[in-house]
Amino acid sequence: MSIDQLARDFTKAVAEDNAEVYQSYWADDIVSLEPMPDSPMARVEGREALLQKHAWWNENAEVHDTTTEGPFVFGDQFAVNYSMDVTMDGERSQMSEVGLYTVKDGKIAEERFFYGQAGS
Amino acid sequence: MSIDQLARDFTKAVAEDNAEVYQSYWADDIVSLEPMPDSPMARVEGREALLQKHAWWNENAEVHDTTTEGPFVFGDQFAVNYSMDVTMDGERSQMSEVGLYTVKDGKIAEERFFYGQAGS
Repeated sequence: MSIDQLARDFTKAVAEDNAEVYQSYWADDIVSLEPMPDSPMARVEGREALLQKHAWWNENAEVHDTTTEGPFVFGDQFAVNYSMDVTMDGERSQMSEVGLYTVKDGKIAEERFFYGQAGS
Repeated sequence: MSIDQLARDFTKAVAEDNAEVYQSYWADDIVSLEPMPDSPMARVEGREALLQKHAWWNENAEVHDTTTEGPFVFGDQFAVNYSMDVTMDGERSQMSEVGLYTVKDGKIAEERFFYGQAGS
């Protein structure tokens, strides 16, 4: 499968919250990175740990709306833009981030989330 | 300057088409990459060559409207989302792409453009 096709299938499954499909693209040793140096979420490694991260998110975040744009492809990487209207700890906010995915041997070996910066 | 601040200043200057400011963030040996393997634009290296790339673009593209979203930061990289309404070779189209920038020693050492993929 070409990376274009993989990227489209994965992004569609994420947009539809079709976990069975998008998780089928994870490598067993997938690494998931967030720019939160002091958090246990900074680096999550392996399918089991990533499933736990997702479970944590589903328990702690109430997602009112989400939009997905992309994928955008370069070489063995693709980017997806996410916007989310979410309530966490009783606080509702609009988040946006870019997910950067690295593909190896037809599976997603790494995902890395870039956070939006407040205006200058 | 923090990467957050650099990313915000750079993105603001790009959005305002303020070349003097955004070019001041380029490293002299900046590398600019496009996912077009057979094109001379695939890899452009150095400030002079990148200025020529920009001149080529300005001569060949009529940009009707452009929007910029971001920046989104992770470590020494940041992403910016671009949408553009542009006419090239007499054909008007809506393009979107993600620019991924890598910062070294306070300058942009690499820019890499991810292209949007048509729907599934």
